[in-house]
Amino acid sequence: MNEPISIEKEITEPGHVHDCCQNHTQRVLAIRDAVELLGGKWKIQIIGTLLFRGKRRFMDLLREVDGIAAKMLSKELQDLEVNQLIKRTVLNTKPVTVEYEITEYGKSLEPLLRTLVDWGVEHRKRIMTRGNQN
Amino acid sequence: MNEPISIEKEITEPGHVHDCCQNHTQRVLAIRDAVELLGGKWKIQIIGTLLFRGKRRFMDLLREVDGIAAKMLSKELQDLEVNQLIKRTVLNTKPVTVEYEITEYGKSLEPLLRTLVDWGVEHRKRIMTRGNQN
Repeated sequence: MNEPISIEKEITEPGHVHDCCQNHTQRVLAIRDAVELLGGKWKIQIIGTLLFRGKRRFMDLLREVDGIAAKMLSKELQDLEVNQLIKRTVLNTKPVTVEYEITEYGKSLEPLLRTLVDWGVEHRKRIMTRGNQN
Repeated sequence: MNEPISIEKEITEPGHVHDCCQNHTQRVLAIRDAVELLGGKWKIQIIGTLLFRGKRRFMDLLREVDGIAAKMLSKELQDLEVNQLIKRTVLNTKPVTVEYEITEYGKSLEPLLRTLVDWGVEHRKRIMTRGNQN
């Protein structure tokens, strides 16, 4: 599913490697990768819940991640597990329960989540104010 | 199905509004709003380009936001403009050129973009290393 990267082409052409371009390409690729991994409606919300609230069972997440369907939650959790951001543990209870928690690597997302929350809170205030003015 | 203690219930039941829960609800809503506004594959990449590289014409963006189609770019730019994150200027040239730039409000996304880039760069290193090991 890898798409061609035209910017890289520019850089690999001899005589076209400017430092500024290379830095920008690094940024663009970094953003693209992060968005690919975390993008979509749900993943950040799931990570936020596990990061800020701790371990959760599947049914807890289904309730707490507002509006998500069971099938979608299952798919998103699997993606996050494959990418080592969360850990899945099957507990030997009757009936069996499955618990999800953030990994050490997943915890590296905390600054990002905090910045997102900060921005989101300000954005929300702004929307609310605009809404009241209308 | 054993119902564990529901946070939502705790919040909506009178006398059960804990500060920690209320804070969490604020966070969840903030994250949801931000993801709704900035989510998807393209918006963060467009904002990143305008934020880090400055003013861009439509055709520049079409080239620099790798893989985006003209129709999609047009739609995404419109969304961002409606949300006051970018500004569209029609220049009186022949033929007419349309320029996009980040607004002051859009600049408030800079810390978020920087954290995203930082994380993305580290994540990319990690992937590359894993890829080389296999």
